[in-house]
Amino acid sequence: MANPTAAMLVIGDEILSGRTRDSNMYFLAQQLTQVGIDLAEVRVVADDADAIVDAVKALSARYDHVFTSGGIGPTHDDITADCIARAFDAHIDVRADARALLEAHYKRTGAELNAARLRMARIPDGATLIDNPVSTAPGFTIANVHVMAGVPAVFEAMVASVLPTLTGGKPLLSQSLRILRGEGEIAAFLGSLAAEFSDLSIGCYPFQQNGIYGANVVIRGAEGARVDAAMTRLATEMGT
Amino acid sequence: MANPTAAMLVIGDEILSGRTRDSNMYFLAQQLTQVGIDLAEVRVVADDADAIVDAVKALSARYDHVFTSGGIGPTHDDITADCIARAFDAHIDVRADARALLEAHYKRTGAELNAARLRMARIPDGATLIDNPVSTAPGFTIANVHVMAGVPAVFEAMVASVLPTLTGGKPLLSQSLRILRGEGEIAAFLGSLAAEFSDLSIGCYPFQQNGIYGANVVIRGAEGARVDAAMTRLATEMGT
Repeated sequence: MANPTAAMLVIGDEILSGRTRDSNMYFLAQQLTQVGIDLAEVRVVADDADAIVDAVKALSARYDHVFTSGGIGPTHDDITADCIARAFDAHIDVRADARALLEAHYKRTGAELNAARLRMARIPDGATLIDNPVSTAPGFTIANVHVMAGVPAVFEAMVASVLPTLTGGKPLLSQSLRILRGEGEIAAFLGSLAAEFSDLSIGCYPFQQNGIYGANVVIRGAEGARVDAAMTRLATEMGT
Repeated sequence: MANPTAAMLVIGDEILSGRTRDSNMYFLAQQLTQVGIDLAEVRVVADDADAIVDAVKALSARYDHVFTSGGIGPTHDDITADCIARAFDAHIDVRADARALLEAHYKRTGAELNAARLRMARIPDGATLIDNPVSTAPGFTIANVHVMAGVPAVFEAMVASVLPTLTGGKPLLSQSLRILRGEGEIAAFLGSLAAEFSDLSIGCYPFQQNGIYGANVVIRGAEGARVDAAMTRLATEMGT
Protein backbone atom coordinates (compact mmCIF):
# COMPACT_ATOMS: atom_id res chain seq x y z
CA MET A 1 0.00 0.00 0.00
CA ALA A 2 1.27 3.44 -0.83
CA ASN A 3 2.28 5.71 2.03
CA PRO A 4 -0.04 8.52 3.15
CA THR A 5 0.73 11.84 1.46
CA ALA A 6 1.08 15.27 3.01
CA ALA A 7 1.50 18.92 2.19
CA MET A 8 2.73 21.77 4.31
CA LEU A 9 1.50 25.37 4.26
CA VAL A 10 3.84 27.96 5.74
CA ILE A 11 2.02 31.21 6.49
CA GLY A 12 3.82 34.50 7.03
CA ASP A 13 4.99 37.73 5.42
CA GLU A 14 8.27 37.46 7.32
CA ILE A 15 9.32 34.38 5.31
CA LEU A 16 8.45 35.91 1.93
CA SER A 17 10.20 39.20 2.70
CA GLY A 18 13.39 37.39 3.65
CA ARG A 19 13.33 38.70 7.19
CA THR A 20 13.11 35.22 8.70
CA ARG A 21 14.66 32.00 7.43
CA ASP A 22 12.04 29.28 7.82
CA SER A 23 13.17 26.19 9.70
CA ASN A 24 9.81 24.46 10.15
CA MET A 25 9.74 22.99 6.64
CA TYR A 26 13.09 21.28 7.14
CA PHE A 27 12.02 19.96 10.55
CA LEU A 28 8.64 18.63 9.38
CA ALA A 29 10.15 17.03 6.26
CA GLN A 30 12.52 14.99 8.39
CA GLN A 31 9.83 14.01 10.89
CA LEU A 32 7.40 12.86 8.20
CA THR A 33 10.08 10.83 6.43
CA GLN A 34 10.75 8.99 9.67
CA VAL A 35 7.13 7.92 10.10
CA GLY A 36 6.50 7.04 6.45
CA ILE A 37 4.29 9.96 5.44
CA ASP A 38 5.36 11.34 2.06
CA LEU A 39 5.66 15.13 2.01
CA ALA A 40 4.69 15.89 -1.59
CA GLU A 41 4.35 19.66 -1.67
CA VAL A 42 5.03 22.78 0.36
CA ARG A 43 3.54 26.21 -0.17
CA VAL A 44 4.47 29.48 1.47
CA VAL A 45 1.88 32.25 1.41
CA ALA A 46 1.57 35.72 2.96
CA ASP A 47 -0.68 36.79 5.85
CA ASP A 48 -3.44 37.25 3.28
CA ALA A 49 -6.86 35.71 3.91
CA ASP A 50 -7.69 34.76 0.31
CA ALA A 51 -4.25 33.24 -0.27
CA ILE A 52 -4.52 31.15 2.91
CA VAL A 53 -8.07 29.96 2.24
CA ASP A 54 -7.30 29.03 -1.38
CA ALA A 55 -4.14 27.14 -0.47
CA VAL A 56 -5.81 25.22 2.39
CA LYS A 57 -8.69 24.15 0.15
CA ALA A 58 -6.40 23.05 -2.68
CA LEU A 59 -3.99 21.12 -0.47
CA SER A 60 -6.66 19.58 1.76
CA ALA A 61 -8.44 18.17 -1.29
CA ARG A 62 -5.28 16.75 -2.83
CA TYR A 63 -3.35 15.19 0.07
CA ASP A 64 -4.08 12.95 3.05
CA HIS A 65 -2.74 15.50 5.52
CA VAL A 66 -2.00 19.21 5.56
CA PHE A 67 0.26 20.78 8.19
CA THR A 68 0.22 24.56 8.60
CA SER A 69 2.66 26.75 10.51
CA GLY A 70 2.22 30.36 11.54
CA GLY A 71 -0.44 32.95 12.23
CA ILE A 72 -2.14 31.65 15.38
CA GLY A 73 -0.82 34.18 17.91
CA PRO A 74 -2.64 37.12 19.57
CA THR A 75 -1.86 39.96 17.15
CA HIS A 76 -3.84 41.53 14.29
CA ASP A 77 -1.76 39.70 11.66
CA ASP A 78 -2.65 36.30 13.16
CA ILE A 79 -5.53 35.32 10.90
CA THR A 80 -4.87 31.63 10.27
CA ALA A 81 -7.56 30.16 12.56
CA ASP A 82 -10.30 32.29 11.01
CA CYS A 83 -9.09 31.44 7.50
CA ILE A 84 -9.13 27.71 8.23
CA ALA A 85 -12.68 28.03 9.56
CA ARG A 86 -13.67 29.84 6.36
CA ALA A 87 -12.03 27.15 4.21
CA PHE A 88 -14.22 24.52 5.88
CA ASP A 89 -17.34 26.68 6.31
CA ALA A 90 -17.04 26.12 10.05
CA HIS A 91 -18.23 28.48 12.77
CA ILE A 92 -15.41 29.91 14.88
CA ASP A 93 -15.36 31.67 18.23
CA VAL A 94 -13.59 31.54 21.58
CA ARG A 95 -14.10 27.95 22.69
CA ALA A 96 -14.51 26.90 26.32
CA ASP A 97 -11.87 24.16 26.31
CA ALA A 98 -9.18 26.39 24.80
CA ARG A 99 -10.21 29.28 27.05
CA ALA A 100 -9.84 27.08 30.13
CA LEU A 101 -6.28 26.17 29.11
CA LEU A 102 -5.36 29.84 28.71
CA GLU A 103 -7.06 30.87 31.97
CA ALA A 104 -5.07 28.31 33.91
CA HIS A 105 -1.86 29.34 32.16
CA TYR A 106 -2.21 33.07 32.79
CA LYS A 107 -3.33 32.46 36.35
CA ARG A 108 -0.09 30.50 36.87
CA THR A 109 2.07 33.18 35.29
CA GLY A 110 0.24 36.14 36.83
CA ALA A 111 -0.36 37.82 33.46
CA GLU A 112 -3.74 39.04 32.31
CA LEU A 113 -5.89 37.06 29.90
CA ASN A 114 -6.79 40.13 27.86
CA ALA A 115 -8.80 40.36 24.63
CA ALA A 116 -5.73 39.87 22.43
CA ARG A 117 -4.63 36.71 24.23
CA LEU A 118 -8.18 35.41 24.20
CA ARG A 119 -7.98 35.42 20.39
CA MET A 120 -5.73 32.38 20.80
CA ALA A 121 -8.76 30.47 22.11
CA ARG A 122 -10.63 30.97 18.81
CA ILE A 123 -11.12 27.41 17.57
CA PRO A 124 -13.46 26.25 14.80
CA ASP A 125 -16.40 24.03 15.77
CA GLY A 126 -15.55 20.37 15.30
CA ALA A 127 -11.80 20.82 15.64
CA THR A 128 -9.73 18.89 18.18
CA LEU A 129 -7.03 20.72 20.10
CA ILE A 130 -3.31 20.11 19.62
CA ASP A 131 -1.34 20.18 22.86
CA ASN A 132 1.24 22.96 23.25
CA PRO A 133 3.57 22.06 26.13
CA VAL A 134 5.75 25.12 25.45
CA SER A 135 3.39 28.07 25.75
CA THR A 136 -0.08 26.52 26.27
CA ALA A 137 -2.06 28.26 23.47
CA PRO A 138 -3.22 25.22 21.50
CA GLY A 139 -3.13 24.33 17.83
CA PHE A 140 -6.00 22.36 16.33
CA THR A 141 -6.89 19.70 13.80
CA ILE A 142 -9.95 20.08 11.61
CA ALA A 143 -10.71 17.49 8.93
CA ASN A 144 -7.23 16.61 7.58
CA VAL A 145 -5.59 19.94 8.42
CA HIS A 146 -3.28 20.33 11.41
CA VAL A 147 -2.89 23.98 12.40
CA MET A 148 0.25 24.83 14.34
CA ALA A 149 2.32 27.79 15.52
CA GLY A 150 5.14 29.38 13.56
CA VAL A 151 7.63 29.85 16.41
CA PRO A 152 9.96 26.89 15.84
CA ALA A 153 10.05 25.64 19.45
CA VAL A 154 6.25 25.63 19.61
CA PHE A 155 5.84 24.19 16.09
CA GLU A 156 8.18 21.34 16.92
CA ALA A 157 6.37 20.58 20.17
CA MET A 158 3.01 20.55 18.36
CA VAL A 159 4.35 18.21 15.67
CA ALA A 160 5.43 15.88 18.47
CA SER A 161 1.86 16.05 19.83
CA VAL A 162 0.20 15.33 16.48
CA LEU A 163 2.38 12.74 14.76
CA PRO A 164 1.69 9.85 17.17
CA THR A 165 -2.04 10.25 16.41
CA LEU A 166 -1.54 9.67 12.66
CA THR A 167 -1.16 6.42 10.79
CA GLY A 168 2.15 6.38 9.01
CA GLY A 169 3.45 4.13 6.30
CA LYS A 170 6.76 2.43 5.70
CA PRO A 171 9.55 4.79 6.69
CA LEU A 172 11.69 5.68 3.71
CA LEU A 173 15.10 4.07 4.05
CA SER A 174 18.02 5.96 2.66
CA GLN A 175 21.68 5.29 1.95
CA SER A 176 24.13 7.68 0.41
CA LEU A 177 27.58 7.52 -1.17
CA ARG A 178 29.93 10.47 -1.55
CA ILE A 179 31.68 10.28 -4.91
CA LEU A 180 34.61 12.49 -5.85
CA ARG A 181 33.80 12.62 -9.54
CA GLY A 182 31.83 15.19 -11.49
CA GLU A 183 28.12 14.55 -11.82
CA GLY A 184 28.51 14.39 -15.59
CA GLU A 185 30.96 11.45 -15.29
CA ILE A 186 28.54 9.23 -13.40
CA ALA A 187 25.23 10.37 -14.88
CA ALA A 188 25.03 7.64 -17.55
CA PHE A 189 25.57 4.85 -15.02
CA LEU A 190 23.08 6.40 -12.59
CA GLY A 191 20.47 6.57 -15.34
CA SER A 192 20.82 2.86 -16.06
CA LEU A 193 20.78 2.07 -12.32
CA ALA A 194 17.57 4.11 -11.89
CA ALA A 195 15.98 2.26 -14.80
CA GLU A 196 16.92 -1.14 -13.33
CA PHE A 197 15.79 -0.25 -9.79
CA SER A 198 12.65 1.60 -10.82
CA ASP A 199 11.04 0.96 -7.40
CA LEU A 200 13.72 3.15 -5.77
CA SER A 201 14.40 6.87 -5.89
CA ILE A 202 17.99 7.59 -6.89
CA GLY A 203 19.07 11.18 -6.49
CA CYS A 204 22.35 12.85 -7.35
CA TYR A 205 23.34 16.03 -5.49
CA PRO A 206 26.48 17.74 -6.78
CA PHE A 207 28.80 19.75 -4.60
CA GLN A 208 31.90 21.83 -5.05
CA GLN A 209 34.27 22.25 -2.14
CA ASN A 210 37.72 23.84 -2.27
CA GLY A 211 37.80 23.36 -6.02
CA ILE A 212 36.87 19.68 -5.84
CA TYR A 213 33.79 18.57 -7.74
CA GLY A 214 31.80 15.65 -6.42
CA ALA A 215 28.33 14.33 -5.85
CA ASN A 216 26.35 12.67 -3.10
CA VAL A 217 24.25 9.88 -4.53
CA VAL A 218 21.23 9.06 -2.37
CA ILE A 219 19.23 5.87 -2.83
CA ARG A 220 15.82 5.80 -1.13
CA GLY A 221 13.15 3.15 -0.87
CA ALA A 222 10.88 1.29 1.49
CA GLU A 223 12.57 -2.13 1.06
CA GLY A 224 15.94 -2.37 2.77
CA ALA A 225 17.13 -5.29 0.64
CA ARG A 226 16.51 -3.39 -2.57
CA VAL A 227 18.29 -0.28 -1.29
CA ASP A 228 21.22 -2.52 -0.26
CA ALA A 229 21.35 -4.19 -3.67
CA ALA A 230 21.38 -0.91 -5.56
CA MET A 231 23.98 0.58 -3.23
CA THR A 232 26.24 -2.45 -3.71
CA ARG A 233 26.00 -2.07 -7.48
CA LEU A 234 26.80 1.65 -7.20
CA ALA A 235 29.78 1.15 -4.86
CA THR A 236 31.20 -1.61 -7.10
CA GLU A 237 30.89 0.51 -10.22
CA MET A 238 32.50 3.49 -8.52
CA GLY A 239 35.33 1.37 -7.19
CA THR A 240 34.79 2.37 -3.57
CA MET B 1 2.00 51.86 -9.10
CA ALA B 2 2.06 48.51 -7.34
CA ASN B 3 5.32 46.58 -7.30
CA PRO B 4 5.80 43.63 -9.67
CA THR B 5 4.89 40.29 -8.08
CA ALA B 6 6.83 37.05 -8.08
CA ALA B 7 6.62 33.41 -7.12
CA MET B 8 9.35 30.86 -6.55
CA LEU B 9 9.24 27.17 -7.42
CA VAL B 10 11.75 24.97 -5.61
CA ILE B 11 12.14 21.59 -7.34
CA GLY B 12 13.65 18.57 -5.64
CA ASP B 13 12.95 15.38 -3.71
CA GLU B 14 15.88 16.16 -1.42
CA ILE B 15 14.08 19.16 0.07
CA LEU B 16 10.80 17.31 0.66
CA SER B 17 12.51 14.30 2.23
CA GLY B 18 14.37 16.52 4.68
CA ARG B 19 17.77 15.46 3.39
CA THR B 20 18.69 18.99 2.36
CA ARG B 21 17.74 22.27 4.01
CA ASP B 22 16.83 24.70 1.26
CA SER B 23 18.64 28.02 1.36
CA ASN B 24 17.64 29.41 -2.03
CA MET B 25 14.22 30.61 -0.88
CA TYR B 26 15.72 32.71 1.89
CA PHE B 27 18.33 34.14 -0.48
CA LEU B 28 15.87 35.00 -3.24
CA ALA B 29 13.36 36.52 -0.79
CA GLN B 30 15.98 38.96 0.44
CA GLN B 31 17.20 39.84 -3.06
CA LEU B 32 13.69 40.50 -4.37
CA THR B 33 12.81 42.68 -1.38
CA GLN B 34 15.87 44.82 -2.13
CA VAL B 35 14.80 45.52 -5.71
CA GLY B 36 11.11 46.04 -4.96
CA ILE B 37 9.67 42.84 -6.42
CA ASP B 38 7.09 41.34 -4.05
CA LEU B 39 7.56 37.61 -3.48
CA ALA B 40 3.97 36.49 -2.96
CA GLU B 41 4.17 32.69 -2.97
CA VAL B 42 6.66 29.83 -2.87
CA ARG B 43 5.98 26.23 -3.80
CA VAL B 44 8.19 23.21 -3.32
CA VAL B 45 7.49 20.16 -5.48
CA ALA B 46 9.20 16.82 -6.10
CA ASP B 47 11.15 15.72 -9.18
CA ASP B 48 7.82 14.77 -10.73
CA ALA B 49 6.97 15.96 -14.23
CA ASP B 50 3.25 16.56 -13.73
CA ALA B 51 3.80 18.39 -10.44
CA ILE B 52 6.41 20.67 -12.03
CA VAL B 53 4.35 21.41 -15.15
CA ASP B 54 1.18 22.15 -13.16
CA ALA B 55 2.99 24.45 -10.72
CA VAL B 56 4.80 26.37 -13.47
CA LYS B 57 1.56 26.96 -15.37
CA ALA B 58 -0.33 28.09 -12.27
CA LEU B 59 2.38 30.43 -11.01
CA SER B 60 3.30 31.82 -14.43
CA ALA B 61 -0.33 32.80 -15.04
CA ARG B 62 -0.74 34.44 -11.64
CA TYR B 63 2.47 36.42 -11.06
CA ASP B 64 4.71 38.78 -13.03
CA HIS B 65 7.78 36.59 -12.53
CA VAL B 66 8.49 32.98 -11.59
CA PHE B 67 11.91 31.87 -10.38
CA THR B 68 12.69 28.15 -10.29
CA SER B 69 15.59 26.37 -8.61
CA GLY B 70 16.78 22.82 -9.14
CA GLY B 71 16.73 20.01 -11.65
CA ILE B 72 18.86 21.37 -14.50
CA GLY B 73 21.96 19.18 -14.05
CA PRO B 74 23.16 16.20 -16.14
CA THR B 75 21.51 13.27 -14.31
CA HIS B 76 18.32 11.29 -14.96
CA ASP B 77 16.45 13.14 -12.18
CA ASP B 78 17.13 16.52 -13.80
CA ILE B 79 13.88 17.02 -15.68
CA THR B 80 13.13 20.69 -15.10
CA ALA B 81 14.10 22.04 -18.56
CA ASP B 82 11.90 19.50 -20.34
CA CYS B 83 9.00 20.23 -17.96
CA ILE B 84 9.26 23.98 -18.55
CA ALA B 85 9.22 23.37 -22.31
CA ARG B 86 6.09 21.23 -21.87
CA ALA B 87 4.41 23.91 -19.76
CA PHE B 88 4.86 26.41 -22.62
CA ASP B 89 4.34 23.95 -25.50
CA ALA B 90 7.84 24.82 -26.67
CA HIS B 91 10.19 22.55 -28.62
CA ILE B 92 13.33 21.58 -26.69
CA ASP B 93 16.65 20.09 -27.78
CA VAL B 94 20.37 20.66 -27.41
CA ARG B 95 20.81 24.23 -28.58
CA ALA B 96 23.89 25.52 -30.41
CA ASP B 97 24.55 28.52 -28.16
CA ALA B 98 24.40 26.49 -24.95
CA ARG B 99 26.42 23.67 -26.53
CA ALA B 100 29.16 26.13 -27.52
CA LEU B 101 29.43 27.33 -23.91
CA LEU B 102 29.79 23.78 -22.63
CA GLU B 103 32.29 22.81 -25.36
CA ALA B 104 34.54 25.73 -24.46
CA HIS B 105 34.22 24.92 -20.75
CA TYR B 106 35.08 21.23 -21.05
CA LYS B 107 37.91 21.98 -23.48
CA ARG B 108 39.35 24.29 -20.82
CA THR B 109 38.98 21.77 -18.03
CA GLY B 110 40.05 18.75 -20.08
CA ALA B 111 36.90 16.77 -19.23
CA GLU B 112 34.75 15.09 -21.82
CA LEU B 113 31.49 16.65 -23.05
CA ASN B 114 29.61 13.36 -22.89
CA ALA B 115 25.93 12.68 -23.51
CA ALA B 116 24.96 13.32 -19.88
CA ARG B 117 26.68 16.71 -19.77
CA LEU B 118 25.21 17.60 -23.13
CA ARG B 119 21.77 17.34 -21.51
CA MET B 120 22.63 20.63 -19.79
CA ALA B 121 22.51 22.29 -23.25
CA ARG B 122 18.85 21.34 -23.67
CA ILE B 123 17.12 24.74 -23.92
CA PRO B 124 13.56 25.43 -25.12
CA ASP B 125 13.16 27.37 -28.37
CA GLY B 126 12.63 31.05 -27.70
CA ALA B 127 14.37 31.05 -24.31
CA THR B 128 17.26 33.39 -23.52
CA LEU B 129 20.23 32.00 -21.60
CA ILE B 130 21.08 32.99 -18.03
CA ASP B 131 24.80 33.37 -17.43
CA ASN B 132 26.42 30.92 -14.99
CA PRO B 133 29.84 32.28 -13.98
CA VAL B 134 30.35 29.43 -11.49
CA SER B 135 30.09 26.26 -13.57
CA THR B 136 29.12 27.48 -17.07
CA ALA B 137 26.02 25.32 -17.74
CA PRO B 138 23.42 28.06 -18.29
CA GLY B 139 19.96 28.67 -16.89
CA PHE B 140 17.31 30.21 -19.11
CA THR B 141 14.35 32.57 -19.19
CA ILE B 142 11.23 31.69 -21.16
CA ALA B 143 8.20 33.97 -21.03
CA ASN B 144 8.14 35.15 -17.39
CA VAL B 145 9.89 32.07 -15.93
CA HIS B 146 13.54 32.17 -14.89
CA VAL B 147 15.00 28.66 -14.64
CA MET B 148 18.04 28.30 -12.41
CA ALA B 149 20.20 25.68 -10.73
CA GLY B 150 19.61 24.27 -7.26
CA VAL B 151 23.21 24.29 -6.00
CA PRO B 152 23.21 27.44 -3.85
CA ALA B 153 26.45 28.96 -5.22
CA VAL B 154 25.19 28.55 -8.78
CA PHE B 155 21.64 29.67 -7.96
CA GLU B 156 22.95 32.82 -6.31
CA ALA B 157 25.20 33.62 -9.27
CA MET B 158 22.29 33.15 -11.69
CA VAL B 159 20.04 35.42 -9.60
CA ALA B 160 22.78 38.04 -9.83
CA SER B 161 22.73 37.57 -13.64
CA VAL B 162 18.95 37.86 -13.96
CA LEU B 163 17.87 40.55 -11.49
CA PRO B 164 19.54 43.51 -13.25
CA THR B 165 17.50 42.66 -16.38
CA LEU B 166 14.17 43.02 -14.54
CA THR B 167 12.23 46.16 -13.73
CA GLY B 168 11.80 46.42 -10.00
CA GLY B 169 9.54 48.61 -7.95
CA LYS B 170 10.03 50.58 -4.80
CA PRO B 171 12.24 48.64 -2.41
CA LEU B 172 10.37 47.77 0.76
CA LEU B 173 11.77 49.75 3.69
CA SER B 174 11.76 48.08 7.04
CA GLN B 175 12.38 49.09 10.64
CA SER B 176 12.11 46.87 13.67
CA LEU B 177 11.90 47.28 17.42
CA ARG B 178 12.72 44.58 19.95
CA ILE B 179 10.24 44.71 22.82
CA LEU B 180 10.69 42.78 26.04
CA ARG B 181 6.99 42.31 26.68
CA GLY B 182 4.76 39.40 25.77
CA GLU B 183 3.01 39.60 22.43
CA GLY B 184 -0.34 39.53 24.19
CA GLU B 185 0.52 42.71 26.14
CA ILE B 186 1.13 44.79 23.02
CA ALA B 187 -1.34 43.21 20.60
CA ALA B 188 -4.17 45.69 21.21
CA PHE B 189 -1.94 48.70 20.55
CA LEU B 190 -0.43 47.07 17.46
CA GLY B 191 -3.89 46.42 16.08
CA SER B 192 -4.83 50.08 16.40
CA LEU B 193 -1.49 51.14 14.91
CA ALA B 194 -2.05 48.82 11.94
CA ALA B 195 -5.51 50.26 11.41
CA GLU B 196 -4.19 53.83 11.49
CA PHE B 197 -1.23 53.08 9.19
CA SER B 198 -3.12 50.84 6.79
CA ASP B 199 -0.62 51.55 3.98
CA LEU B 200 2.10 49.80 6.03
CA SER B 201 2.64 46.18 6.96
CA ILE B 202 3.11 45.76 10.71
CA GLY B 203 4.28 42.33 11.81
CA CYS B 204 4.85 40.97 15.29
CA TYR B 205 7.26 38.08 15.75
CA PRO B 206 7.42 36.63 19.23
CA PHE B 207 10.52 35.04 20.73
CA GLN B 208 11.45 33.29 23.91
CA GLN B 209 15.06 33.36 25.02
CA ASN B 210 16.39 32.16 28.38
CA GLY B 211 12.91 32.36 29.84
CA ILE B 212 12.33 35.92 28.63
CA TYR B 213 9.31 36.53 26.42
CA GLY B 214 9.48 39.31 23.87
CA ALA B 215 8.58 40.26 20.34
CA ASN B 216 10.21 41.91 17.38
CA VAL B 217 7.81 44.34 15.78
CA VAL B 218 8.63 44.99 12.13
CA ILE B 219 7.12 47.91 10.22
CA ARG B 220 7.45 47.76 6.43
CA GLY B 221 6.43 50.10 3.66
CA ALA B 222 7.57 51.87 0.53
CA GLU B 223 7.44 55.42 2.01
CA GLY B 224 10.22 56.13 4.46
CA ALA B 225 8.38 59.03 6.14
CA ARG B 226 5.39 56.80 6.91
CA VAL B 227 7.55 54.02 8.34
CA ASP B 228 9.34 56.62 10.49
CA ALA B 229 6.05 58.04 11.75
CA ALA B 230 4.67 54.65 12.72
CA MET B 231 7.93 53.61 14.37
CA THR B 232 7.99 56.84 16.41
CA ARG B 233 4.46 56.15 17.64
CA LEU B 234 5.42 52.59 18.53
CA ALA B 235 8.59 53.57 20.38
CA THR B 236 6.77 56.28 22.33
CA GLU B 237 3.98 53.92 23.35
CA MET B 238 6.46 51.27 24.43
CA GLY B 239 8.51 53.79 26.39
CA THR B 240 11.77 52.97 24.62
